[in-house]
Amino acid sequence: MNRTFLRVAATLLALVPGGVFAQPDPLPSWRPGPAKSRIVAFVKKVTDDASPHYVPVSRRIAVFDNDGTLWSEQPAYFQLLFAVDRVKAMAPRHPEWATTQPFKAALEGDMKALAAAGEKGLLELVMATHAGMTTEEFEAVVRDWIVHARHPTLKRPYTELVFQPMVELLAWLRANGFKTFIVSGGGVEFMRPWAERAYGIPPEQVIGSSIAVAYEVRDGHPVLVRQPRIHFIDDKAGKPAGIHYHIGRRPIAAFGNSDGDFQMLEWATAGEGESLGVIVHHTDGAREFAYDRKSAAGRLDRALDEAPRRGWAVVDMKRDWKSVYRVSAP
Amino acid sequence: MNRTFLRVAATLLALVPGGVFAQPDPLPSWRPGPAKSRIVAFVKKVTDDASPHYVPVSRRIAVFDNDGTLWSEQPAYFQLLFAVDRVKAMAPRHPEWATTQPFKAALEGDMKALAAAGEKGLLELVMATHAGMTTEEFEAVVRDWIVHARHPTLKRPYTELVFQPMVELLAWLRANGFKTFIVSGGGVEFMRPWAERAYGIPPEQVIGSSIAVAYEVRDGHPVLVRQPRIHFIDDKAGKPAGIHYHIGRRPIAAFGNSDGDFQMLEWATAGEGESLGVIVHHTDGAREFAYDRKSAAGRLDRALDEAPRRGWAVVDMKRDWKSVYRVSAP
Repeated sequence: MNRTFLRVAATLLALVPGGVFAQPDPLPSWRPGPAKSRIVAFVKKVTDDASPHYVPVSRRIAVFDNDGTLWSEQPAYFQLLFAVDRVKAMAPRHPEWATTQPFKAALEGDMKALAAAGEKGLLELVMATHAGMTTEEFEAVVRDWIVHARHPTLKRPYTELVFQPMVELLAWLRANGFKTFIVSGGGVEFMRPWAERAYGIPPEQVIGSSIAVAYEVRDGHPVLVRQPRIHFIDDKAGKPAGIHYHIGRRPIAAFGNSDGDFQMLEWATAGEGESLGVIVHHTDGAREFAYDRKSAAGRLDRALDEAPRRGWAVVDMKRDWKSVYRVSAP
Repeated sequence: MNRTFLRVAATLLALVPGGVFAQPDPLPSWRPGPAKSRIVAFVKKVTDDASPHYVPVSRRIAVFDNDGTLWSEQPAYFQLLFAVDRVKAMAPRHPEWATTQPFKAALEGDMKALAAAGEKGLLELVMATHAGMTTEEFEAVVRDWIVHARHPTLKRPYTELVFQPMVELLAWLRANGFKTFIVSGGGVEFMRPWAERAYGIPPEQVIGSSIAVAYEVRDGHPVLVRQPRIHFIDDKAGKPAGIHYHIGRRPIAAFGNSDGDFQMLEWATAGEGESLGVIVHHTDGAREFAYDRKSAAGRLDRALDEAPRRGWAVVDMKRDWKSVYRVSAP
């Protein structure tokens, strides 16, 4: 058979409506429903150059929260579990931690006491475990952890707790000319070492919270040393600010799962022209975790209430997703 | 003639060494010489997958200073000239400026008094003219200025003062799989509105100094309001830090023209594997401006002294560039 024949045959087969030979579904892990329809309709509209809603490639910017949107975030943000593991690894050099909070709680795995230490305690934990080393040293630590650490209850590597439907969506958006960014409250340097392999998102498209770095030349070799000082908090109203500092134009699509993403969705969907706001609602206690208004991690309250009148699509994980976790490890 | 014939013919013609039918020079505005040879050899090495110096596309990051590297910076940084124009435009609403420095100097075009106001005076000028409005309002002001303003002595739009050899280099690097970034001490929001058209560099690949923005909802419409407060200074040791916050991996090529770029070049050329550092030396008083060690804008002293032992190529603009300014307006 020659090529022309194959091309004609393929065209004819694709014409069979809904048939087995029709174009493959680019989002096979999404069940038909309002969320999927909304996403697909948006992408078709902004990429169809005959549509009045057409958006040129340069403006096809899509932003994704990470924790709870691209991977799980229970029983605690994974970066907090990383910090706890770091406290344990570093404890021999810090005998004082055995009797000092929040380190004592971390060493004892006492998540309740850890939660009680509040934001201040969390910050202390982060500064003690994330600062005081070069950026290259920290990256090596994260790379090692992400390979060897296991989720406390699911007993799987964290990168296997990435959501398959979102990985498909990221790839499909990119295939449609979108540039995909992570915009997370989590630490940018905690995400960059594995985000490219897990999500196909390169380091320069990962935006997050960060601590300051200082440039130093040590024995003729330049290094960036991580300082125990906040550089930027990329959460809530910080998300549109972070998008502005980093991307410099307004996204036309934003995906989040908590009130921490409220302003990001508000900002992305307030521009002129077509836009898309999507909230991932954690409704599946059997396959993942079910939580919203009362969760410490990923609290979803105001954004859930306001989604209908703001026109944001709400993904019901239990109903809308055929599978939850990625099918094969990245 | 069929396609195969054409392909064979093209291949044969390309084999004529140095002949009129040879592959066109991708850098036609660069004269043969050590600088051009060095740049071309570097690109060939890192893109040749049979070479031990091969670098995969994802790591082909090239960073460019803007003022003095991609466009001129005399008789003063163009952003300072922009600020002066803004002071003049805003003066009717600020009668007090007629008698207050540094505004008085700006209104009178007294660049000497302006220089005497030092960094503090400059900062006052920037805060008064660059803050107190939304990001969209500021962008509109820059877009208008870049179209209508004219250089004080050359009497041309500033975007015509972009260097043709550098525009060719940017395009050629991108054609070779490089991602090109601006890393400038200048304001990121001053550059983004025109950098894509002038250099082919999208907003998300422009890194610079910035003032803080605050997210506000005004009458149900979200805005980012520019605050009279520094967010980040992307100069000297701030450049490697800015690269780290924004890109998250070390560039393999860096282009600058002043001591403000020293640390950026040092950082980019200190990684493992092949790297390239290039300094543009302003030697052409006839076609552009001749200055180095004693200039207020773009002072080049230490970097010029250390270039040879650090292996950085020095571009002698007078000798190495056939043309200086871009051939046609962007």
